[in-house]
Amino acid sequence: MTIQITSGFDAGNILVDACDDPNDIRLQIRKDNQSDFLQWFYFRAVGIAGQASQFNIINAGETTYPAGWENYDVVCSYDRQQWFRVPSSYDGKTLSWSLESQHDSAYFAYFAPYSHEQHCDLVAFANTCSGVSNQSLGLTLDSRDLDYLHIGPMAPMQSSVKRLSVWAIARQHPGESMASFWMEGWLQRLLDEDDATSRALRELADIHVVPNMNPDGSVRGHLRTNAAGANLNREWQDASMENSPEVLLVRDRMHEAGVDLCIDVHGDEAIPHNFIAGTEGVTGWNDQREQTLIDFKNNLASLNPDFQTEHGYPRNAPNSANLTFCSNYVAHTFACPAYTLEMPFKDTANTPQPDVGWSPERSMMLGGSFVTAVYQALARS
Amino acid sequence: MTIQITSGFDAGNILVDACDDPNDIRLQIRKDNQSDFLQWFYFRAVGIAGQASQFNIINAGETTYPAGWENYDVVCSYDRQQWFRVPSSYDGKTLSWSLESQHDSAYFAYFAPYSHEQHCDLVAFANTCSGVSNQSLGLTLDSRDLDYLHIGPMAPMQSSVKRLSVWAIARQHPGESMASFWMEGWLQRLLDEDDATSRALRELADIHVVPNMNPDGSVRGHLRTNAAGANLNREWQDASMENSPEVLLVRDRMHEAGVDLCIDVHGDEAIPHNFIAGTEGVTGWNDQREQTLIDFKNNLASLNPDFQTEHGYPRNAPNSANLTFCSNYVAHTFACPAYTLEMPFKDTANTPQPDVGWSPERSMMLGGSFVTAVYQALARS
Amino acid sequence: MTIQITSGFDAGNILVDACDDPNDIRLQIRKDNQSDFLQWFYFRAVGIAGQASQFNIINAGETTYPAGWENYDVVCSYDRQQWFRVPSSYDGKTLSWSLESQHDSAYFAYFAPYSHEQHCDLVAFANTCSGVSNQSLGLTLDSRDLDYLHIGPMAPMQSSVKRLSVWAIARQHPGESMASFWMEGWLQRLLDEDDATSRALRELADIHVVPNMNPDGSVRGHLRTNAAGANLNREWQDASMENSPEVLLVRDRMHEAGVDLCIDVHGDEAIPHNFIAGTEGVTGWNDQREQTLIDFKNNLASLNPDFQTEHGYPRNAPNSANLTFCSNYVAHTFACPAYTLEMPFKDTANTPQPDVGWSPERSMMLGGSFVTAVYQALARS
Amino acid sequence: MTIQITSGFDAGNILVDACDDPNDIRLQIRKDNQSDFLQWFYFRAVGIAGQASQFNIINAGETTYPAGWENYDVVCSYDRQQWFRVPSSYDGKTLSWSLESQHDSAYFAYFAPYSHEQHCDLVAFANTCSGVSNQSLGLTLDSRDLDYLHIGPMAPMQSSVKRLSVWAIARQHPGESMASFWMEGWLQRLLDEDDATSRALRELADIHVVPNMNPDGSVRGHLRTNAAGANLNREWQDASMENSPEVLLVRDRMHEAGVDLCIDVHGDEAIPHNFIAGTEGVTGWNDQREQTLIDFKNNLASLNPDFQTEHGYPRNAPNSANLTFCSNYVAHTFACPAYTLEMPFKDTANTPQPDVGWSPERSMMLGGSFVTAVYQALARS
Repeated sequence: MTIQITSGFDAGNILVDACDDPNDIRLQIRKDNQSDFLQWFYFRAVGIAGQASQFNIINAGETTYPAGWENYDVVCSYDRQQWFRVPSSYDGKTLSWSLESQHDSAYFAYFAPYSHEQHCDLVAFANTCSGVSNQSLGLTLDSRDLDYLHIGPMAPMQSSVKRLSVWAIARQHPGESMASFWMEGWLQRLLDEDDATSRALRELADIHVVPNMNPDGSVRGHLRTNAAGANLNREWQDASMENSPEVLLVRDRMHEAGVDLCIDVHGDEAIPHNFIAGTEGVTGWNDQREQTLIDFKNNLASLNPDFQTEHGYPRNAPNSANLTFCSNYVAHTFACPAYTLEMPFKDTANTPQPDVGWSPERSMMLGGSFVTAVYQALARS
Repeated sequence: MTIQITSGFDAGNILVDACDDPNDIRLQIRKDNQSDFLQWFYFRAVGIAGQASQFNIINAGETTYPAGWENYDVVCSYDRQQWFRVPSSYDGKTLSWSLESQHDSAYFAYFAPYSHEQHCDLVAFANTCSGVSNQSLGLTLDSRDLDYLHIGPMAPMQSSVKRLSVWAIARQHPGESMASFWMEGWLQRLLDEDDATSRALRELADIHVVPNMNPDGSVRGHLRTNAAGANLNREWQDASMENSPEVLLVRDRMHEAGVDLCIDVHGDEAIPHNFIAGTEGVTGWNDQREQTLIDFKNNLASLNPDFQTEHGYPRNAPNSANLTFCSNYVAHTFACPAYTLEMPFKDTANTPQPDVGWSPERSMMLGGSFVTAVYQALARS
Repeated sequence: MTIQITSGFDAGNILVDACDDPNDIRLQIRKDNQSDFLQWFYFRAVGIAGQASQFNIINAGETTYPAGWENYDVVCSYDRQQWFRVPSSYDGKTLSWSLESQHDSAYFAYFAPYSHEQHCDLVAFANTCSGVSNQSLGLTLDSRDLDYLHIGPMAPMQSSVKRLSVWAIARQHPGESMASFWMEGWLQRLLDEDDATSRALRELADIHVVPNMNPDGSVRGHLRTNAAGANLNREWQDASMENSPEVLLVRDRMHEAGVDLCIDVHGDEAIPHNFIAGTEGVTGWNDQREQTLIDFKNNLASLNPDFQTEHGYPRNAPNSANLTFCSNYVAHTFACPAYTLEMPFKDTANTPQPDVGWSPERSMMLGGSFVTAVYQALARS
Repeated sequence: MTIQITSGFDAGNILVDACDDPNDIRLQIRKDNQSDFLQWFYFRAVGIAGQASQFNIINAGETTYPAGWENYDVVCSYDRQQWFRVPSSYDGKTLSWSLESQHDSAYFAYFAPYSHEQHCDLVAFANTCSGVSNQSLGLTLDSRDLDYLHIGPMAPMQSSVKRLSVWAIARQHPGESMASFWMEGWLQRLLDEDDATSRALRELADIHVVPNMNPDGSVRGHLRTNAAGANLNREWQDASMENSPEVLLVRDRMHEAGVDLCIDVHGDEAIPHNFIAGTEGVTGWNDQREQTLIDFKNNLASLNPDFQTEHGYPRNAPNSANLTFCSNYVAHTFACPAYTLEMPFKDTANTPQPDVGWSPERSMMLGGSFVTAVYQALARS
């Protein structure tokens, strides 16, 4: 059977140079629309049963984060439910792997994908849970809803205590699909009526959630940008309806609701660890804010050993914060903790599971652990 | 909260005239691309909790099958899993219904939708079952795979008996989403290793399946046509790669594999019954073919009382068959039984379930019943 | 680790002669209480990981049906959910098999067991379905409920037509646990509101179900008898509260409700086929009753190829019926069809699945097929 | 329909004084075998649809813990899967409640039951997980296995670090079925390969688990004792094979394996809170042990707000520990932390969920929270 390589589905991204020789399938990653970013890929190979096929992404060396391919193993599935890793190699130019497939078809991706349909199912489920309200903040450039969930107490409360505002947003960068699994874990736990920690957190705070900041980029199979080529996490100072309505609409809602703690969920291409980037560069940073950050990170690491505090991005110099980033913008504007969570595309170097690497299931677990971490942070403060 | 009406998702179709007044939400159905067909709709309403909202499709009277709105109740879901009916009325111009929603958001559709992601999941599942091979017959105009499954025996056989070729195809008309649920029921049962009937059928025949003939029209939210405005079930004589590659590719594969029995799965907008349209108008029709058709229909009705034999389309006059239809083309070309199954958009008048009407679950059940019906037809012949 | 063989759970039955040598574990089957019947066994072996263990049932040659061990493979499970076959041999005295276990513990049984807790769950589930009433007909000798379900129409009906009475009973012989899986398949399908065939059958007839005629023998791990050593399928003429209350209570209920068709579900130790034993020996047997029987069997075989009509018990001579059997008693008393269904403990010789043999799943499928078979029989008559 | 009250199933316990008048059903709780303890009840009522039935347990005032009935609501289920509370009242003598049943049958219990079959399923599941070994420590007086699980690292480790020994045991008192749900939550989480906390805990310690210390009392429907009337949590100094083999066998295994931390899981009839009873009365108690206890309790309360530290048993006076209790025996013998966890039969007064009260789901959640609490305690020490 001849081999076919296709990507005509949600988040698909591949260009085919050649696929007639199973020993040398030659592929390229397509750039984001109106942008030079490229790294996300997702395709199906058909006709590969019963032979070893050699896949080569020949422009790996020209992608946005070539360091991402070192010690990276490609993600694969036969049934689109179970995703596993296939050992891969990178020679500085080409990412290559070989699979002797058990079945005619297999899907390959940079990370396990999370479709717009899954997103809609998640929002619709949340919509049926008690204490949850659900809005569209507006439309994206491709006319998709920018879905927003407001999660209040599970049961009616009589309280004169001022409620806090916790925000969680994900997938400003659409190629970071682990952020959607984190969201699923975060929401499933928050919405579980039998979970005492979730109930308690929801009595302390309103939870504001934007499960997917960039649905257009997600469906288009982009790495970093929205339909217009805007990198949303560089738009928080100058967002516009023309270029970055996703940011503008969320920012406006933040200003209405206030922010006491914000989590912005991402993936990092190169670093094989879960870590939090803080906002040490914002004006007004001080020892107390530093300690709050340290406490949160340490506590999270003790709740979930897949998270760690040693590795991460270099610390920003004082008063150097780039306010086009969500976390810096929020920390600056609302003088509150704002955490950029980074999860790996690879595996966690300290707690590896080589068969699956960093995975949907582990991302969901980490989302669940944040419920405890945020509850403890608010309850102690 | 203001009401928002959106359709930025797989198979979405709506135009909004006005939605500021909950008592008079005015909507229109959008035409298929490059075509005048219109009837399928699918949208989300947000901001409707705690009040009665009145929805009006004001161009219902101008749709392709206005008779479809008589005794029709709209399909609704809060969670996109459970779909129920909301009593609706039609005055010859406008289709109207009112819902006092329990939740902020609800989805409304002409029939429960079946997304391309669900299609991909179904094909990927089949791909992992023993005895199944999986190909893409080629690409559609929107560059989607035209997925094809070849289902052989579950366990290896040694047999010199010539194997028969059974074909089942669905969704030439993309707005007839019940056909996808029929397919899911048909495939789940055929692929169940514990089902003796499926095993026996697969020992008698190769089963060729095209779960979705028109993935482009399905994703685009069309009623009848592909991306280029072609009504695929009028293309079987003159299919072309430019206009109707979906038909051309399947027709070619039929000629390679042969056809001994063909099922083409559809929905009918007006008739509140499940029925089979035969191919009595083809040249060469005779008493034996007539009896085979009668036997199949009677047997199916006795296997599944949701199917009946009394109501349906008028019988074609002898030698008048329109060979642009799949069933006529196949019956003519391969001199074999070819059945057009029609399921209702409404409910079955003889066996009604008013809360759900004709539903995904019942469509799946009917798909399962066809496994027995086809097995018995082949085993007796 | 030393090997332990235990049976302290529902339906457990084993006697341990020796289990210190993994190469020669020597076991015996225990007789039914107050009876000489013996064949059912069910035990757990602990401490068997990582070595081949040889199990020998040394009194296999002295069991009630020694022919049952020919071509029989023992049923095994690690997790009590998935049951598979382990190749076994019988030398006329001892049944033997060897397993190199993947895990510390494994369960072995004559057939996949079905516990009283599963029975209670099934009855409780049915109790929550619309149109179902649920009674205890009385207490067994061990003080268990004799559960009875009365299944009327799913939705309220207005009908002056006399409704028929269909009866289905199972596990008069408690060691025949496949009869419980048949019941689960029969009930799940009957209670499925989306199943048009079930709805139609329930509009024609009241369905009377005794899912387990012999709960005491089932829990005690018996082959054939109740707590007092009575073989219930030899008690239908002379049932008594002292000796066989199970039969007396059901018989009385049958006389109240009437019987138009009765199915008594069993397993056969020796014959590797599914078959129905009729009641040809009852007085008043005639050609019409013969034809009804033949039609039912042929139709069932065409609905589910795991059932066949060639092999079975020898035909009873005219007027020789033993009225202590349920089917003969019912056929005689109510002048109606009464079928004894026998399923194999082994595998079906014509449609084998060697990895699982005749299995819970296939028994459930057959139970489901009876819904269609009974519906068609009643609808045609 | 006449009302029937029966208890012929696993853990059933009721005596019927009168049940002919639905307005005055009069029941009594049966004493544990060879003992005066009584409080657990579990029965089925049949024939109660469509009317209000009034249930009275007329010897409630003579049970072991009459304070248990104050503010207690009975636990009820129609389908044995979903258990809910029915408002109940206690006048010092009789516990009463009324139910207008939706269905013919309902089950009532002191707490949601957990059968021996569920126990066997849980152990069999654990048996199939990597890194788990499974033994029977010996037989109970009724010849049931005393099941024991040894949970090592998920993946093979190379480590010279001495591994700790954590023990968890449950249901010394068989009527405290919430302890089995705690165990299910504890084990499901420990055995989840995607859970980084469980993986990390299993790298620090071997986990020794006895999911049910008293299977005989559990099946017999006892409150406090084993088959011979022994209260196992008063047997730790003088356990014997004749009277309390369950304790002797576990105690011996503890001496072989060592104990570094022990959790003994219980329910308390009277106190509407989750709390831990420490071992302050043992000889050698000191400030450090006190602090360890305080830290563990505080940490657990911050992980799961259904747990609290304010309410509980009075503190033992120094050097007054009753060493017949498991926790005191272990704390004394192994000089380690030993915690008696008590969960309520009622609801938690501070975090109530009136529809279900303290429930299986919340017990499981608390079991899961202990994984984090124990991990953090060991990781910090």
